[in-house]
Amino acid sequence: MSHIKPEETLMLLIDHQSGLFQLVKDIPVPDLRRNAIALAKVATLLQIPVITSASVPDGPNGPLIPEIHQAAPHAQYVGRRGEINVWDSADFVKAVEATGRKTLILAGTLTSVCMAFPSISAVAAGYKVYAVVDASGNSSVMGTDLTIARIVQAGVIPIDTLAVISELQQTWNRPDAMAFADIYADFNMPHYRLLIESYDKAQAVQKAKT
Amino acid sequence: MSHIKPEETLMLLIDHQSGLFQLVKDIPVPDLRRNAIALAKVATLLQIPVITSASVPDGPNGPLIPEIHQAAPHAQYVGRRGEINVWDSADFVKAVEATGRKTLILAGTLTSVCMAFPSISAVAAGYKVYAVVDASGNSSVMGTDLTIARIVQAGVIPIDTLAVISELQQTWNRPDAMAFADIYADFNMPHYRLLIESYDKAQAVQKAKT
Amino acid sequence: MSHIKPEETLMLLIDHQSGLFQLVKDIPVPDLRRNAIALAKVATLLQIPVITSASVPDGPNGPLIPEIHQAAPHAQYVGRRGEINVWDSADFVKAVEATGRKTLILAGTLTSVCMAFPSISAVAAGYKVYAVVDASGNSSVMGTDLTIARIVQAGVIPIDTLAVISELQQTWNRPDAMAFADIYADFNMPHYRLLIESYDKAQAVQKAKT
Amino acid sequence: MSHIKPEETLMLLIDHQSGLFQLVKDIPVPDLRRNAIALAKVATLLQIPVITSASVPDGPNGPLIPEIHQAAPHAQYVGRRGEINVWDSADFVKAVEATGRKTLILAGTLTSVCMAFPSISAVAAGYKVYAVVDASGNSSVMGTDLTIARIVQAGVIPIDTLAVISELQQTWNRPDAMAFADIYADFNMPHYRLLIESYDKAQAVQKAKT
Amino acid sequence: MSHIKPEETLMLLIDHQSGLFQLVKDIPVPDLRRNAIALAKVATLLQIPVITSASVPDGPNGPLIPEIHQAAPHAQYVGRRGEINVWDSADFVKAVEATGRKTLILAGTLTSVCMAFPSISAVAAGYKVYAVVDASGNSSVMGTDLTIARIVQAGVIPIDTLAVISELQQTWNRPDAMAFADIYADFNMPHYRLLIESYDKAQAVQKAKT
Amino acid sequence: MSHIKPEETLMLLIDHQSGLFQLVKDIPVPDLRRNAIALAKVATLLQIPVITSASVPDGPNGPLIPEIHQAAPHAQYVGRRGEINVWDSADFVKAVEATGRKTLILAGTLTSVCMAFPSISAVAAGYKVYAVVDASGNSSVMGTDLTIARIVQAGVIPIDTLAVISELQQTWNRPDAMAFADIYADFNMPHYRLLIESYDKAQAVQKAKT
Amino acid sequence: MSHIKPEETLMLLIDHQSGLFQLVKDIPVPDLRRNAIALAKVATLLQIPVITSASVPDGPNGPLIPEIHQAAPHAQYVGRRGEINVWDSADFVKAVEATGRKTLILAGTLTSVCMAFPSISAVAAGYKVYAVVDASGNSSVMGTDLTIARIVQAGVIPIDTLAVISELQQTWNRPDAMAFADIYADFNMPHYRLLIESYDKAQAVQKAKT
Amino acid sequence: MSHIKPEETLMLLIDHQSGLFQLVKDIPVPDLRRNAIALAKVATLLQIPVITSASVPDGPNGPLIPEIHQAAPHAQYVGRRGEINVWDSADFVKAVEATGRKTLILAGTLTSVCMAFPSISAVAAGYKVYAVVDASGNSSVMGTDLTIARIVQAGVIPIDTLAVISELQQTWNRPDAMAFADIYADFNMPHYRLLIESYDKAQAVQKAKT
Repeated sequence: MSHIKPEETLMLLIDHQSGLFQLVKDIPVPDLRRNAIALAKVATLLQIPVITSASVPDGPNGPLIPEIHQAAPHAQYVGRRGEINVWDSADFVKAVEATGRKTLILAGTLTSVCMAFPSISAVAAGYKVYAVVDASGNSSVMGTDLTIARIVQAGVIPIDTLAVISELQQTWNRPDAMAFADIYADFNMPHYRLLIESYDKAQAVQKAKT
Repeated sequence: MSHIKPEETLMLLIDHQSGLFQLVKDIPVPDLRRNAIALAKVATLLQIPVITSASVPDGPNGPLIPEIHQAAPHAQYVGRRGEINVWDSADFVKAVEATGRKTLILAGTLTSVCMAFPSISAVAAGYKVYAVVDASGNSSVMGTDLTIARIVQAGVIPIDTLAVISELQQTWNRPDAMAFADIYADFNMPHYRLLIESYDKAQAVQKAKT
Repeated sequence: MSHIKPEETLMLLIDHQSGLFQLVKDIPVPDLRRNAIALAKVATLLQIPVITSASVPDGPNGPLIPEIHQAAPHAQYVGRRGEINVWDSADFVKAVEATGRKTLILAGTLTSVCMAFPSISAVAAGYKVYAVVDASGNSSVMGTDLTIARIVQAGVIPIDTLAVISELQQTWNRPDAMAFADIYADFNMPHYRLLIESYDKAQAVQKAKT
Repeated sequence: MSHIKPEETLMLLIDHQSGLFQLVKDIPVPDLRRNAIALAKVATLLQIPVITSASVPDGPNGPLIPEIHQAAPHAQYVGRRGEINVWDSADFVKAVEATGRKTLILAGTLTSVCMAFPSISAVAAGYKVYAVVDASGNSSVMGTDLTIARIVQAGVIPIDTLAVISELQQTWNRPDAMAFADIYADFNMPHYRLLIESYDKAQAVQKAKT
Repeated sequence: MSHIKPEETLMLLIDHQSGLFQLVKDIPVPDLRRNAIALAKVATLLQIPVITSASVPDGPNGPLIPEIHQAAPHAQYVGRRGEINVWDSADFVKAVEATGRKTLILAGTLTSVCMAFPSISAVAAGYKVYAVVDASGNSSVMGTDLTIARIVQAGVIPIDTLAVISELQQTWNRPDAMAFADIYADFNMPHYRLLIESYDKAQAVQKAKT
Repeated sequence: MSHIKPEETLMLLIDHQSGLFQLVKDIPVPDLRRNAIALAKVATLLQIPVITSASVPDGPNGPLIPEIHQAAPHAQYVGRRGEINVWDSADFVKAVEATGRKTLILAGTLTSVCMAFPSISAVAAGYKVYAVVDASGNSSVMGTDLTIARIVQAGVIPIDTLAVISELQQTWNRPDAMAFADIYADFNMPHYRLLIESYDKAQAVQKAKT
Repeated sequence: MSHIKPEETLMLLIDHQSGLFQLVKDIPVPDLRRNAIALAKVATLLQIPVITSASVPDGPNGPLIPEIHQAAPHAQYVGRRGEINVWDSADFVKAVEATGRKTLILAGTLTSVCMAFPSISAVAAGYKVYAVVDASGNSSVMGTDLTIARIVQAGVIPIDTLAVISELQQTWNRPDAMAFADIYADFNMPHYRLLIESYDKAQAVQKAKT
Repeated sequence: MSHIKPEETLMLLIDHQSGLFQLVKDIPVPDLRRNAIALAKVATLLQIPVITSASVPDGPNGPLIPEIHQAAPHAQYVGRRGEINVWDSADFVKAVEATGRKTLILAGTLTSVCMAFPSISAVAAGYKVYAVVDASGNSSVMGTDLTIARIVQAGVIPIDTLAVISELQQTWNRPDAMAFADIYADFNMPHYRLLIESYDKAQAVQKAKT
């Protein structure tokens, strides 16, 4: 397996909007929100460029959740003129091309549409696309099952947030390892925080003995 | 991704009958009914021709649900002589060919049979086929999982109602955008109606202040 | 069992608001919405007085869903000044007392709060209270399980929409029987519509033969 | 789609044994039992040859359920000498080859093993294989999901009992149509029996009127 | 615990109709059907009188499923004039009183209505009532949870089919023990049939050795 | 709360037989088996007398699982003559009375029958009865829900294995605390073993540092 | 209903420890953690005294999660000497009595033990006890169902976090209303945050227009 | 199908650590633990070499569960220097190559990472890889669904523990057949133990008669 290389990768976070999140039924919304933020955090950590967009944010779809740009202050927001498939926006594709990167990590709400359409378009345009399904969010579980089948058929690589972060991290033997641990514990896998708490306590107890 | 183009597309709605709906266990029947109607509505909106059929509607399978033809008054009903796979009906295939269209959006109850058989047949006959699984309806969840695997293996494109409508809509920047919003809100995604209601109220409150 | 007598009964529909509905996770929102409308319909049919209220409808909780007052045009809306338990509102209690009725059919969103609090208060105030849990709606299934246990402990009678309508209807041998059938078929039990459609078709087929 | 042609088809029902059925957790055992019997019935109806086998039936795996051979009295039982994959048994493969048929409908308990192994072997040996997953039965749902993925990868066609019967039936316009209706109603889809009962009653009521 | 005594008991099987069965969502319909038949069978075995009734069987509710009267040929059918609560029918109550029995085993479809209403009425009239929830059948799981809470509050004893049969049977040390085994194996607990099959085979194998 | 006092308590483990375990669908069988063994272990640890029984163990119900008597070698087995309710067996009641203990911890397979019947009987006979539902095992989830409602109505105290063990243990400040930890970790809560393993490792790592 | 009065209430948060949280299977751990923190926050907001405790925190059970004392800096920690039921600790009961308050809001991990035991003990000691089940956390869903039945039988009031906060809040017409909104949105009901975000945006859009 | 041949196969058991096991949510942890041990047992039985590894076992991930090396005393442990994908460790790949075997049976916790990454890498390196998903363990069900889709796309063969053991066993007609039966019964399929117990008892009863 050739790793996802941070220096060749661009992250696209599409339509993570508070209104659309109310429609999500395939994953608990808090999990979705934490996963999307985790992606933004890891992009910042590894200096991966990020492009965001929103679908008609002045209407019922609502605003982008604020944590995305908070976690990735370097992210570039590209508005669009109503296009549903972000890849139909000339501005958006131009912004993607400007980065010169050919590997895309893409998540979008709703999965069947905002994630699936640009993923398939980008593969058709010659990109290698990782579609992060658990950082997307769909209006039904059946819709997500169908979408996974469809994008695989089209050559998109399906993946979850955990695998994205781990593949980018590559090794625990790096100076920023603790920053990764915090992303897992605070966002992607809350049970990991429990492990750290218990571990620290067990060592503190032992230390106090000696 | 090349969009599903309305002007090259034909919609086939097969065997959405009240008796058969009683057999459906893979999706709540009200959701199925709303999704099927949503497809008929969008076909009307975009002037996509529709062909319907029913399997032995004079017997226990029951009549077509009336909303399909109400929502798509231009739909052509093609009866058949007992054939289970609608593609085995010469009349039906003739009606399809008469439209000259090579892209099919197809839904049928029961999924394993009425949707799967003609989907696979049509791909074999050279059509591009989108099978709308959540506007179909099956007698078991396991049956649907198996059917998705089978049709993908055969080259059919699996899709949900939401993706069909959105792909046909392409953009919110069009005169009939509100008609699309109503289809989502009243049929495909009832939570979307809540978003619109809340949005309108929030603006009315603000307006009253100023 | 003494029947719920329409002429002694008052219906209270509390806080069925579009914003609050987005928080509901114990029942599909379309089912909840249809059940609440079914209650309003049956109240109109049987001339049972209805009082509605909303919790801070100018804020994020959103407006009352419009179908309640559409289905029960005689319903009286009683605003309140922020009280969470509607029974804490002197205006509301006064409106209840003005009807002179001592049997309450009550539904409210969210179940743990807007339904449970006034139900328990009304029992304490000497009313016979039927709490309609599937016309309420709660933020978790566990919350609903707990609430059922709590209100039963307090002397409230737990019930579902179907039982409320049927108990009020009492018999199919009445002039408005078809109106009841429509309420079941269009709101409370969508599968009942399928039965009617299939039944009518089977008879039409037989009729055509003779 | 080329139909499964009865005259080119052989049915293999492997290891449907009472002990093994106790291990089944991916489908309710009564459903599994009815589906397996339905296959045997349809084979008899269409004179499709059937070969059965059992894995160590003198041990805890238990005897074949008796209904298989009752429903398909023409079925040939081929014992084996401990081989887990029935395709490892020279006697079994010889029996298959003796029929001269190249299309196999195969079900086996447990799915991951008794169905998957010979399915994959038979494809490798040049057969067209339909694996009937809901007439098989596995010790976990996850095991079945994995097996579907595995057999599709290997070129086996995944299918459910309903699709097998319907594909073999082809049309309702045949003398034995009622025999098919009974197989659906009594075995594969018990809700279908309800449809027939209601249909007959509705017609009788109408008839009595005229 | 004082046993349910067959000689003091009357069984009431209310509204087990094919149309109503299509509305059942709290238990698989085949399980419901088998449980209802199991009750009828055990009543016949122990000469417990049975009264049946149906709600508007000439309309969409459909006919009684035929197996009830087949399994309990001594059952008395009491028609009614549209009353929803069977206890509102003077004819029905008269038939109950004619038996002189004060312990009732009652099942009815739909649970929230046809089972709950007469159960509560009968307790109010001084009867000891066992309500057999898994031989009833309801339009939602939530409705069943609410109904159990409601009938317990009213003094009805909630029970399942298995407990009814076992409590009536009392002991395996009786001449008709095998008839009970068959009722469990063929109706109430299909897995029990597997146990018997495996047991007989294991003994046959051992016997053949000796 | 007055604690369950070991010295006043008798444990009854009824019909934990391999055949009956195949019928269990309300709890994973491995969990049930471990819970039943956990009860036997804790009885041995605290010298609580145990009485076991089996229902027709020479027939398809099968033998008692061997671990019960292995874990509680002091347990007394009382055979019976076909009685389904163990409390109907004069021998059994005599054995209970011989212990002179008035608090019973009781588990039995199947829950609706073997646990429920003697629990209710014993309460009627003046005993305080704790019914351990997750060390019992039933043929349906609905049956268990009904049984909990029924036994509570009859005055039985419903409880789980964890609460039984913890209530008997009372404190971690006792010489045999580690034996309790092992019962939790190896039987009642396998995740507890993970905690211990991680804890020990974390301390070993810390120790190695110092 | 008499409201839970903040000035008469004491909150007990028992054994919310990182190790024990790993055992929780009846509620997603992030939900549990947020609910427990929400309780601590509301106690601080309303100056309700809080007592915490931990079970053997130097062992595998792990440390208290830090957010409890962070959110309720006024909370008093009472250690114990191994007692499992916190009410067995003389120190703890003394601390409770020192507050002079007779209404307890109590949550504890694990529910069957750490919540149930002291709840029942406190009721026996004359306290009014609200047991907050979704701020507790148990090792199985069945265990929680059993515990709810048991504590209700013992006179404890079962409740969820939402109802606790709302009952204490009483009205939105208070200066600290926004603090309550934040507790709901950030802890108890994450979907409420989405409502606020969408609401603010809708108003901002409207404002910009005018 | 060419069987997995023991003599050409190497088993890789990666990161089965107590801390990581606490994160597993796609399979009950006891099942996962038993499946992993079953693999180790069968490797020992068939003299298949085993390589294990652990990810930062001195930190919160925790130690390898001890049963792996207990069940496979011949297993070789290869430590690594922080690499997340075990295939990134030169030492590990060297150890794999040293065995000269080209067929890998691989399981790893967490599935999306520790199983998926080296599986895909090994296929890319020319190995035939069987990925044992139910002996792995993931932090979400959705993650596992995505991983199965991803590895199949990459050419890995998805499989469950049962199929692995059965394919390696090939036949019951071998001297060590009972050892296989014990692995199924004690680890992979606990219901199989029940079958054996019941079978032995039934034969003993028969034997005693003769």
